Amino acid sequence: MALAQALIRRRSVTPADDGALDVVQGALESLGFQCWRLPFAEVDNLFARRGTAGPHFCFAGHTDVVPPGDEALWRHPPFGAEVHDGVLYGRGAQDMKGDIAAFIAAIPDDLPGSLSLLITGDEEGPSVNGTVKVLEWMAANGQIPDACLVGEPTSKAVLGDTLKIGRRGSMNAYVTVHGTQGHSAYPQKADNPVHRLVAAIAELTSKPIDDGSEWFEATTLQVTGLQVDNTATNVIPAEARCFLNIRFNERHTSASLTEHLREVLARHAPRHDLRVVVSGESFVTQPGPFVDALVKATARATNITPQLDTGGGTSDARFITRYCPVAELGLVGSTMHKTDECVPVAELEALSRLYANVIREFFS
Amino acid sequence: MALAQALIRRRSVTPADDGALDVVQGALESLGFQCWRLPFAEVDNLFARRGTAGPHFCFAGHTDVVPPGDEALWRHPPFGAEVHDGVLYGRGAQDMKGDIAAFIAAIPDDLPGSLSLLITGDEEGPSVNGTVKVLEWMAANGQIPDACLVGEPTSKAVLGDTLKIGRRGSMNAYVTVHGTQGHSAYPQKADNPVHRLVAAIAELTSKPIDDGSEWFEATTLQVTGLQVDNTATNVIPAEARCFLNIRFNERHTSASLTEHLREVLARHAPRHDLRVVVSGESFVTQPGPFVDALVKATARATNITPQLDTGGGTSDARFITRYCPVAELGLVGSTMHKTDECVPVAELEALSRLYANVIREFFS
Ligand SMILES: [Zn+2]
Ligand SMILES: [Zn+2]
Repeated sequence: MALAQALIRRRSVTPADDGALDVVQGALESLGFQCWRLPFAEVDNLFARRGTAGPHFCFAGHTDVVPPGDEALWRHPPFGAEVHDGVLYGRGAQDMKGDIAAFIAAIPDDLPGSLSLLITGDEEGPSVNGTVKVLEWMAANGQIPDACLVGEPTSKAVLGDTLKIGRRGSMNAYVTVHGTQGHSAYPQKADNPVHRLVAAIAELTSKPIDDGSEWFEATTLQVTGLQVDNTATNVIPAEARCFLNIRFNERHTSASLTEHLREVLARHAPRHDLRVVVSGESFVTQPGPFVDALVKATARATNITPQLDTGGGTSDARFITRYCPVAELGLVGSTMHKTDECVPVAELEALSRLYANVIREFFS
Repeated sequence: MALAQALIRRRSVTPADDGALDVVQGALESLGFQCWRLPFAEVDNLFARRGTAGPHFCFAGHTDVVPPGDEALWRHPPFGAEVHDGVLYGRGAQDMKGDIAAFIAAIPDDLPGSLSLLITGDEEGPSVNGTVKVLEWMAANGQIPDACLVGEPTSKAVLGDTLKIGRRGSMNAYVTVHGTQGHSAYPQKADNPVHRLVAAIAELTSKPIDDGSEWFEATTLQVTGLQVDNTATNVIPAEARCFLNIRFNERHTSASLTEHLREVLARHAPRHDLRVVVSGESFVTQPGPFVDALVKATARATNITPQLDTGGGTSDARFITRYCPVAELGLVGSTMHKTDECVPVAELEALSRLYANVIREFFS
């Protein structure tokens, strides 16, 4: 509790740190952890490890928070960490300063292996100089763990009801189709890029890309924008543009979907430009020893068997999955990113017991 | 010639008249015509007729001209009507002050029937207060002719090579498809209007509407604009718009094509708004006595048998066709609407002989 309050009182709105990582580092050093501060550009990060032997379990989290918005709208100050009627108020109480404090409080004195924490200051921001770069440093320095738990607030209604084992991938595509301008009375002398683009989109949207997978719903493709810079109805325009978003399951990668787009476009609109921006690849940590341990520990701590889930947006787990099995488990996220973010003190304590069970189960 | 020069010297850029109709009226009154000035809003028009007996032949034209653009770019002043090396220069020389002067010069002293002229000051403009309104007045006053010749510059390379017997129709459609806004990660909770609009356009453009007719090329449908007011790739927009232009032959009417659009839209996008603006219906004056007379008169005057043609944009003939057979025949239109518009004096004289033959043939 004291640690959660100390963290909330740091105004660490991405990319500011305001001493938040110092608070974490101080707590971990007093528990015997060796700490490395890993600043990249304007972002500060912390990697801490105790022990060098295997197995190696890692907890990943972030001390940065989203802005509080208009502070006058908060019933209790967003960086005050005040407790009222057994509830702790403040930005980051659920996402995820509370979770970090609960994990640190759950660390036992002694373990048959090693325990580490990967804490970034850039999860809510561009996610460029945070977890991605720390993982590269860890890989270069022999610090990749055997498994990793991300402390995001995954629970839906009750603590422990949801264990996140994957996330859908997300990518945006920006398409420009080139044609040949002309007069709409003489289309045979022109090449209408609108018709070509529309034919491609019609094919892309006419049937589902897949029918889902064991852990995910069907991949979706949504055209979110169309643009043709022409208002004269007697002119066939030279260019037509569209923007689209794809949310995809693990049956695809951004590369395979880009290839799909390129193939359909090539058939309907040979002269096109395609720019793809990948927000995250899809991933799933298939049920196995690591997921089993998390389920068992959660059931023991909360009397609830968590649902394995892959919904929601993206988190830093999408980067960690490239190195080791990863899952996400934490508080109920009911007020995250909202005004009056808060967490019951009893839930924080229950999460700490849950995390203690996770650590015990992993090393058993 | 003197009449053509007097007309060109009037700066009658639509809707200005600058005395052009007075010049025509003066010439016609001296030939025994009764004249009616028919002003509607800011547009002045003239109907003139000599005789009351049938058959009744009408010549239709316009004294208004398109703007000269930068007058400094003209070799000879656009309203100067100067003759250099046997060529008359000026705005309207071809389109169509020259044609009007040639027709008036072709009028014989005596005819077995009646001859009229419908001269408007609003052909190059919105065409709302010109020929349409004059025709309504003519219908109300028993002045509808048995046939009408429009003096547009229809010849392509040589005077008399082309007789225009019809024009394609043209209409614009403005479509708005309504959907339900949402997050692109959860398309099942939204209703993407882009996908609906694209499916409709894909169907409308996937195959030709027809394969042409005896006198016309195939009907064409061109989507000239797309518009979605959304740049966020994580948002499914609420509305999608498109603009399209249809050029159609006489197998369709604007009403039948509107019905076609509505039917396709209803299937793919039940919630839509469709606004149609008709520029002109398609029409064709089928070969018969009137067209035969024009062909014979042209061949006699020029030694060329004119091609029957239905190409090009719209003219006031699209309004006249509702009342009587109509065709278009006039000068070569090589410099119309351009800088240094001009006509050889010899061609003007040849056109006058051609029109004289037309009148003789019609009344024979
Ligand atoms: Zn978070
Ligand atoms: Zn004209």
